[in-house]
Amino acid sequence: MTDLTAPPFSSRHIGPSESEQQRMLEAVGFESVADLVAVAVPEAIRAKDSLKLPAAIGEAEAIAELRALAGRNRVLTSMIGLGYYDTVTPAVIRRNLLENPGWYTAYTPYQPEISQGRLEALLNFQTVVSDLTGLPVAGASLLDEGTAAAEAMTLARRAGKSKSSVFVVDADALPQTKAVLATRAEPLGITLVEHSLDGELPECFGVLVQYPGASGRVRDFRAVAAAAHEAGALVVAAADLLALTLVAAPGELGADIAIGSSQRFGVSFGFGGPHAAYMSVREGLQRQLPGRLVGVSVDADGGPAYRLALQTREQHIRREKATSNICTAQVLLAVIAGMYAVYHGPEGLRRIAHRVHRYAVVLAGGLRRAGVEVVHDEFFDTVLARVPGRAAEVVAAAAERGVNLWQADADHVSVACDEKTGAAEIAKVWAAFGVPAADVNIDGDIEGASDALPHTLVRESDYLTHPVFHQHRSETAMLRYLRKLQDKDIALDRSMIPLGSCTMKLNATTEMEPITWPEFAAIHPYAPEEQAEGYRELIGTLEGWLAEVTGYDAVSIQPNAGSQGEFAGLLAIRAYHRANGQGERDVCLIPSSAHGTNAASAVMAGMRVVVVACDENGNVDLADLDAKIAKHRDALAAIMVTYPSTHGVYEETVTEICEKVHEAGGQVYVDGANLNALVGLAKPGAFGADVSHLNLHKTFCIPHGGGGPGVGPVAVRAHLADYLPGHPLRDGSPVGPVSAAPYGSAGILPISWAYVRMMGGEGLKAATEQAILSANYLARRLAPHYPVLYTGRGGLVAHECIIDLRQITKETGVTVDDVAKRLIDYGFHAPTMSFPVAGTLMIEPTESEDLGELDRFVDAMIAIRGEIAKVASGDYDKADNPLRNAPHTAAAVTADEWPHPYTRSEAAYPVPSLRDGKYWVPVRRIDQAYGDRNLVCSCPPLEAYED
Amino acid sequence: MTDLTAPPFSSRHIGPSESEQQRMLEAVGFESVADLVAVAVPEAIRAKDSLKLPAAIGEAEAIAELRALAGRNRVLTSMIGLGYYDTVTPAVIRRNLLENPGWYTAYTPYQPEISQGRLEALLNFQTVVSDLTGLPVAGASLLDEGTAAAEAMTLARRAGKSKSSVFVVDADALPQTKAVLATRAEPLGITLVEHSLDGELPECFGVLVQYPGASGRVRDFRAVAAAAHEAGALVVAAADLLALTLVAAPGELGADIAIGSSQRFGVSFGFGGPHAAYMSVREGLQRQLPGRLVGVSVDADGGPAYRLALQTREQHIRREKATSNICTAQVLLAVIAGMYAVYHGPEGLRRIAHRVHRYAVVLAGGLRRAGVEVVHDEFFDTVLARVPGRAAEVVAAAAERGVNLWQADADHVSVACDEKTGAAEIAKVWAAFGVPAADVNIDGDIEGASDALPHTLVRESDYLTHPVFHQHRSETAMLRYLRKLQDKDIALDRSMIPLGSCTMKLNATTEMEPITWPEFAAIHPYAPEEQAEGYRELIGTLEGWLAEVTGYDAVSIQPNAGSQGEFAGLLAIRAYHRANGQGERDVCLIPSSAHGTNAASAVMAGMRVVVVACDENGNVDLADLDAKIAKHRDALAAIMVTYPSTHGVYEETVTEICEKVHEAGGQVYVDGANLNALVGLAKPGAFGADVSHLNLHKTFCIPHGGGGPGVGPVAVRAHLADYLPGHPLRDGSPVGPVSAAPYGSAGILPISWAYVRMMGGEGLKAATEQAILSANYLARRLAPHYPVLYTGRGGLVAHECIIDLRQITKETGVTVDDVAKRLIDYGFHAPTMSFPVAGTLMIEPTESEDLGELDRFVDAMIAIRGEIAKVASGDYDKADNPLRNAPHTAAAVTADEWPHPYTRSEAAYPVPSLRDGKYWVPVRRIDQAYGDRNLVCSCPPLEAYED
Repeated sequence: MTDLTAPPFSSRHIGPSESEQQRMLEAVGFESVADLVAVAVPEAIRAKDSLKLPAAIGEAEAIAELRALAGRNRVLTSMIGLGYYDTVTPAVIRRNLLENPGWYTAYTPYQPEISQGRLEALLNFQTVVSDLTGLPVAGASLLDEGTAAAEAMTLARRAGKSKSSVFVVDADALPQTKAVLATRAEPLGITLVEHSLDGELPECFGVLVQYPGASGRVRDFRAVAAAAHEAGALVVAAADLLALTLVAAPGELGADIAIGSSQRFGVSFGFGGPHAAYMSVREGLQRQLPGRLVGVSVDADGGPAYRLALQTREQHIRREKATSNICTAQVLLAVIAGMYAVYHGPEGLRRIAHRVHRYAVVLAGGLRRAGVEVVHDEFFDTVLARVPGRAAEVVAAAAERGVNLWQADADHVSVACDEKTGAAEIAKVWAAFGVPAADVNIDGDIEGASDALPHTLVRESDYLTHPVFHQHRSETAMLRYLRKLQDKDIALDRSMIPLGSCTMKLNATTEMEPITWPEFAAIHPYAPEEQAEGYRELIGTLEGWLAEVTGYDAVSIQPNAGSQGEFAGLLAIRAYHRANGQGERDVCLIPSSAHGTNAASAVMAGMRVVVVACDENGNVDLADLDAKIAKHRDALAAIMVTYPSTHGVYEETVTEICEKVHEAGGQVYVDGANLNALVGLAKPGAFGADVSHLNLHKTFCIPHGGGGPGVGPVAVRAHLADYLPGHPLRDGSPVGPVSAAPYGSAGILPISWAYVRMMGGEGLKAATEQAILSANYLARRLAPHYPVLYTGRGGLVAHECIIDLRQITKETGVTVDDVAKRLIDYGFHAPTMSFPVAGTLMIEPTESEDLGELDRFVDAMIAIRGEIAKVASGDYDKADNPLRNAPHTAAAVTADEWPHPYTRSEAAYPVPSLRDGKYWVPVRRIDQAYGDRNLVCSCPPLEAYED
Repeated sequence: MTDLTAPPFSSRHIGPSESEQQRMLEAVGFESVADLVAVAVPEAIRAKDSLKLPAAIGEAEAIAELRALAGRNRVLTSMIGLGYYDTVTPAVIRRNLLENPGWYTAYTPYQPEISQGRLEALLNFQTVVSDLTGLPVAGASLLDEGTAAAEAMTLARRAGKSKSSVFVVDADALPQTKAVLATRAEPLGITLVEHSLDGELPECFGVLVQYPGASGRVRDFRAVAAAAHEAGALVVAAADLLALTLVAAPGELGADIAIGSSQRFGVSFGFGGPHAAYMSVREGLQRQLPGRLVGVSVDADGGPAYRLALQTREQHIRREKATSNICTAQVLLAVIAGMYAVYHGPEGLRRIAHRVHRYAVVLAGGLRRAGVEVVHDEFFDTVLARVPGRAAEVVAAAAERGVNLWQADADHVSVACDEKTGAAEIAKVWAAFGVPAADVNIDGDIEGASDALPHTLVRESDYLTHPVFHQHRSETAMLRYLRKLQDKDIALDRSMIPLGSCTMKLNATTEMEPITWPEFAAIHPYAPEEQAEGYRELIGTLEGWLAEVTGYDAVSIQPNAGSQGEFAGLLAIRAYHRANGQGERDVCLIPSSAHGTNAASAVMAGMRVVVVACDENGNVDLADLDAKIAKHRDALAAIMVTYPSTHGVYEETVTEICEKVHEAGGQVYVDGANLNALVGLAKPGAFGADVSHLNLHKTFCIPHGGGGPGVGPVAVRAHLADYLPGHPLRDGSPVGPVSAAPYGSAGILPISWAYVRMMGGEGLKAATEQAILSANYLARRLAPHYPVLYTGRGGLVAHECIIDLRQITKETGVTVDDVAKRLIDYGFHAPTMSFPVAGTLMIEPTESEDLGELDRFVDAMIAIRGEIAKVASGDYDKADNPLRNAPHTAAAVTADEWPHPYTRSEAAYPVPSLRDGKYWVPVRRIDQAYGDRNLVCSCPPLEAYED
C-alpha cells in the first residue's frame, strides 16, 4: 500500500528524485549509491556508525520547535550600546532584500558581469562609509568592528614608518575591540598598550581612538593624531557612522584609517551578528586595504561597469604574503546598510542622528535635575551616570521596566539611545534611576534641548551628495530600485551555480524564515543571559550536533567566517604547545594545493609556513612531507590539509599523513571547506585530525549572501577544548575572542540548526552521497568533451571535479575566461576559475540540483565545446567569435550593426531552451586591469553613464 | 532647527516629494494643492471638517499595534471543517509568491503579453480543477464556494432546458452555501428546495449535491444525476478537491458543473478568506462560465501564448445581459493552490488525501471501540459522532485540549481531519469524547486501517499527468519556476501601472507583513468568538473608520469583491423598499457611462435596468434623467452613479441628481470605484448618497494580486443599516449573506487597517490631493500631444484622465491597441483601454508614483506620439512599423533576419533610459480571436512549444 508518511524534507533539499538518481548511477556505472561510495571513499576513513542525531522532522515541526526556542528569548528594549544599537530595518528592505533569495542566494561577485546589481549596492555602501568618514577609499565590508580594528592595526604596522612594535589602544575603546586586538596582537609580537590618550603617547606604530568612546564621551582627537603622525605612527579611528552625520569626519581630524560597524544602519542585533564592519583609508593606503573593494571599470563596449578591484591583494593570490586572511565578508549586511542610507538619504540620517542625540541630552538633563551625576558633558548617544554602589540596582530596576541598561562597574551605569528611543523609554530609564515621575513633556524637551556635542566638532562637510541617495524616498521607488538591481544578477533562484569549493546548495525557506523573527533578531549580544535562553540552547545543541558530525569533542561557533575559524584553530594548537612547554613549535606545513587562506591564517597565528609539494595527481607528496617533517621536526607545530583535497579527490593517504605528523609531535588541522563530501560518511575528528573549521555557509545551508555572512565554527578534539576562543563579557579563556561578539553571527545560526534538524543523520548522509554522485555524473558526462583532471580510486572524483582547458587553450587560444564568460550567455554562473590549478574549471554541483538542471549545464558545456571546435577548425575567427566576445548583452545583440562573422542567434540563443526566459547580462566583458589602474571606489558621477 | 520627528508613513506612500509636488503644481498652474482642490472639487460636495481618525503612527508602531491585536487571537487546532480545512502552505511558495510583490502587486491579466507568468500559473490551476473534477473546462477562480454555488445555480437556469423555477439543494450541503444560495435565489424568483436527495426529486432546473456532504458522508450520486438529467435539470456537484484525488470525479458521476473551494491546497484559513473557489463545466457549457477563463492562443510569430478567453461573456461588455457580475476573482489564491499541486504532484496529493482519510478512519474506529456512535460508515475526512445531549460538553472538552470541533446540534459533534492532523490531534479528540487513554499506537493503526470510502467510488482515472506537475519536486526547482514566471510579467515592482479606474497604488510592506502571521492566518472562520477577539476588534475599528471616511453610518466588510458589495447594497435598497411596503419599486437607473458591473448587479438584485443618457461631456444628461424619473416614478428603486464619474470628472450636478432621485422616492447608490478622488475631501454619505460599496483593493491598498483578492465593503446610511448582509453562523439579518464567510476575506483586512492607521486623516487627504495633482499633471503634459477627453471646472480632471485616440486612429490607422502594446516596449503596462469610451486610454497615476516615474511615462507617450507622426508622414510604413508590430520580443529583435523597414534599436530602445534594465516581453502580440475559436483552457502538451 501507499506510504502515507509525508516525504522528508531531504527529498525537497536533494534535487534528484529516486528515479533520476537511478539514471545517474547508470551513467556512472554503479548499481547503488552505497556501491559508489564504497569505491569512492577510502575504507580507512569511513565511519562505521550512523550519525547520532535526532530523527529528522518536517518543515512545519521544525518551525514549531524554533518558535518554542524563540519563545524562550525575551525581547526587551536594549539601551546597552557598546557597539550595538537598536535600529529599524525598513520593511521594504527586509522583505525585498533580506528575505529575498534573489539577494541572499547570490555568490561573491567574482564574476562581475553577472553581479552588477550587488556590486552597485556595495558601491553605495562604500560611498556611505567614505563620505561619512571623510576618507577617500572604503572597502566592501569587514566581519565585525573588533576584527576590523585588528585589521587596521596590522595595516598600520605594514604601512607605517615606525619600527615600534607597540600599538596604542584608547582606554575608552569598546571592550570587545580591546579583547580581539589582544588576541590578534600577541602572535604577531605586537605589544598592546591601553592609554587614556590624554597625556603623552608612548612610542608606537599606531593608535586607535574610539570616536565616540565606549563611555559615550566625544573627544576631539586632532592633537592625538598630530602627535602620532609626528612619531611616524598611523591613526585609526573606530567611529560610529550615525554620529558622523553630526560630528566632524575622522579624516578631517587626522585619522589615516577609520573602522567601525554599520549595524545601526538597519541591521538587527541578532544576538551579536552578522553585521557589516567597515574600513576606509586615506589616499596612499588603498592598496593595503584588507578584504574586498568594489571599483568601477569599463566593459568591452567602453561602458562603466563594476567589479572587485585590486584582487591581487587577496589571500588567494598572495598566500602567506597576503594583507589579511579575510575571504568571506558581510556583503548582505553591507548591502542593507547601504540601502538604509539610500532610503533615508543624508537629511534622513541626519534627522535620525539628531533625534537620538536629543533624547540622550534630555535623558542626561533629567538625571542631573534629579541629582544623578552624569560623567561626560559631551556625548552623542550614550549617557554615563555615576550612581555610587547603586549600579546593579538601577540596571535591575530598568530591566523590570523592560529596558536593558549597561552596568559599567559597581558605580556606573551607561544608557545608549538609538533610533527607536522615544519618550516612553526615557521615562522608564528615569524611573529606574529613581527620578521622581514629573509631568515633564519629554517630546517638548526634545525640541527645546541644546546639543551636547563639542563645538569644535560640528560637522561642516557634505555627505551622500550622489543622486542615488536622493532618488528613492518613496517605498515604490525603493522597491523598484531593489528589483532593478536584483534583476541584473544571477543567483541560485535563477540557475545552478556550480562553484567548486564553494558548495552553492539550497538555502531552504524554512531555514531562512526564523532569522527575521523578532525573538531572534532583536536580542542584544550583551543582554542578560536569562533573556537569551532560547539562543543558548540552540547554540549548545548546534555545537553538539556539529561535534557529532565531525567526530570532534568540542565546537565553538564564535568565528564568523571560515578565515576566523582557521585562525581560532591555529591559536588552539599554539596555546596547546605552549601549555605543554613546547612554545618553540611554530612551523606549519601547508601543501602547495591549499586554499590561500590557510597560509595567511598561519602567519596571523605567528607560525612559519613551510610548503609541502604535491605530486602530479594533486596529492600530498609523501616523500616531500617526510623530508619537511625531518627538517622541522622539533619546530613542527601543525599541518593544514584540506579533505577531500582542493582537487576534489579523496586522498588515500590522509590517515598516514596524520600519523606522520602526530609522530613528530605536530597537530593536524583539516580544513573543512570540503566537508560536504564527508558528512555522514567520514569524520575528520575520527580519522586523525585534531582540529577543523567548518563553513556553515557552505555545508550547512547558510546562504552566501553575495559574499557573506558566513559562520566558521572551530571544532577540536578534547585535548584542545580548553583553547577554544573566549570572550571577556561572557567567560574567561586562555585564548581571547576571535570575533567581536561572544557567539559570533548568532543571528543566522537558526539556519544551520533547522537544516540538521530537518535532515537528520540519514538525510545528511544521503545529501553527501548525492553530492558525490552528481559530481561523478558531471565528470562522466563531460569527460568525452573535456579532460577531467585528478581522480581517485575507480577513476572517481569526490564532490567536485576539475576540467582541464590548458591543452584546449594552447591549441585554440580559447581560455578559461572565455568559457566562463560564454557560460553567462547560456544563463549560468561559471564554475570556479583557475583554482586550484590555473587554466582549469572546478565544478561542484552539490546535492540540490536536479537532473534536469545538471543536464542543462552539461548541454551548455558540450555546446561550448562545439564552439571551441569551430575555432580550432577555422569555422570561427580566432579573434572574433562567440567565446571571445562573451558575454553578449541585449544591447550588443540588438545593435543595428552586427559586425561579427557569427550570427546574432548564435550569440544569444546557442541552445533552444534559452528562448524561455533568457537571462540578459547587463554589461559586456569587464576590463579588470583598467579598473585597477584607474581606481574609483565610490559611486561615479552620472555622466559616466552617458553614451 | 531641524524637525526631529520621523517623516510620516505618508511620505513613503506618496510618491512625489514636496519639491516635486511644487514643480507639478507649477506645471498645472496652481500655487498650492489647496488652490487646485478648490477649483477641481465642487464646493457643494466638499467636506468641511477633517476626518475624525486617530492620528497617524509610524510603521513600527503600527506593527506593534497589529501584533497586539494578533495576540488577542488564539490559534487552536481547528477540526471544524464545513468547507475550511487546515493546510500547510509550502514555505517556498509563501515567501516567493504570497510574500512577493512581483506576484501580489500584479494587475488582472487584461494585457496578456506582460502577464504570461501568472496566466501560466492560472492555467495550472484550471488544469488541476479540470483534471480532478473530470470536467473539461475550468475557469480561473471564483470568490468562494457559496457564491460559486450561486453562480452554478444561475448557470444551470440559463443553460438548462427545464422551465421550472426550482433549484434543489442537498440537505447535506454546507450551511453557508445554503444561505448564499437563498440570498441569491430570491431576487431572481428562484425557489430553493432543500432535499435529502434520497427519494424522488421535485421538478427543478438544477440540483446541487455536496460531495462529500457537510456531515462527512460520501455518496454515489449517479442515480440523482440520472434522474435530474431525465427531467431536463442540470447537476451541480460541490466537491472537495482533495477528496477527488481518491474518489470518482463529479464529471464521471454525471455532474454538469462542479464547484468548490481550493482553500485546502495550501491557502490558510484567514478567518474565512480569501480563498479561491473553482468552477468547471462539461463540454457545451464553457461559454456560460462566469468569471475569467484562461486560454491558449498564438502570438504574432505563431508561438503559443496565454490570455483570457471569451472575454465577451464578461459584465464589462454585456452589462445587464452578463452571465454574472463577477469582476475581481481570487487570482493570487488560485495561483497558490495551483502551485501547491505543482509542488506535490499527483502522487503527493494522493498521499496527503490518503493520510487525511486514514486518520479519519482511525478516529472513527477509536470512537466506536469506546461505544460512541459514528453516524456514517462512508466518509472521507469528517466523522460525525452521535453523543446524545453531550455535544456541547465534548466540544468544550476538546477546546480545553486546544482543538476546535464542530457542534452540529445538541446531540452531534463533527470532527474534520486535515493535512496537519496527526496522532497527537487524534489522541486529544478521543480524550475529549472520553475515550479511555489506551496505549494504542495511532501511527500503527494508520498503516493497518482500511479505507471507509464507497467501493463504487474509488477513483480510477488519472490526473495531473502534464509535465508541469512532475518537474518541480525539489525546493530549488520550485523556487526557479516561480522566479521564471514572475520575470515574465510586469507588476508594480517594475514600473507604474497607470490603469484608469483601477488605482494601482503602493501596497506597502508593513501593510502586507501581518497577513502571514499565524495569529491572523490560522483562525478558522467558525472558531469560537473568544478565539478571534483581535480579529473582531480590527474589523469593528476598520468598519468605523470606513464609515467616517465615506460619511455613512454603517459598514459591512463581508462582501469579498466590489461586485458583491454592489449586490449587497442593492439588496439593502430592495429590503428597505419592501419594509416600507414599496416592494414594487424595481427600476434601477444607470448612466450609460457606468461600469458594466452595475447593470449586472442590478439584474441579480431583481431590478430592471433603465439607462440614463450622458451628454457630450460624459456627464449625466439631466433632461434625460428627469424624463426617466417621470416615466418610472412609482417603480423607481434606485440610481447607481459613479463619483467622480467613470470619465474621471467631478460632475457638478451630483447633489442635484441625488435630490431628484430622493424626491421621487428612490435611493441613491454611489459606486465607490473612484473613491480615491474623494477620501478626505468629500463624503458620498454626506453629499446625498444612501449606499456605496468601496474597493479596499483600489483605494485602501489591498494589492490586486493579479486579479484578486479584493474586498468590497458596503456602506450605508442609518436607514439601511438593518439590511446589511448577515450570516447564518454569526447572526440573523433580514438580508442573508452575500459571501460564504461571515467576515468575507477577513485575512487581508489588516492591510487596509494598517494603511488608515499609518496615514491618519491628514495623510489620507494628502494622498487624494496628490492623486488629483498627478492626474492633472499628466493631463497637462500630455495635452499638447493627445487630446484629453472630458474635463471639469477649470479644465481640470479628477484623479484620472482620458486621452482620445479616435482622430489619430482615423488619420493614421494607429489604434489604441497599437499604443498599448507599444508601451510594453517602453516597459509600461498600458492604461485602461477603451473604457469608458472606445478608442481612448484612461490613465490613473495614483499618488504613489514619484515625478521621475510620471515623467518617464510622459516621455514614453510623447515618443510614441512621435512614432505615430512618422506613420502619418509616411516615414513609417502604415502596416510595418514599431507600433503595429509591438510588442517586440528579444527573440524578434535579435533574429538573424530583420525584415522591417525601421531599425532594431528603434524597436527595442526607443528611449535611452531603457538601456538600464529593459523588460523583455516574452511573447509578441496575441491573437485573441484565434484563441476563442480554438478554446484550450488547460495546460497544453509540450509539443505546442516546439519551434
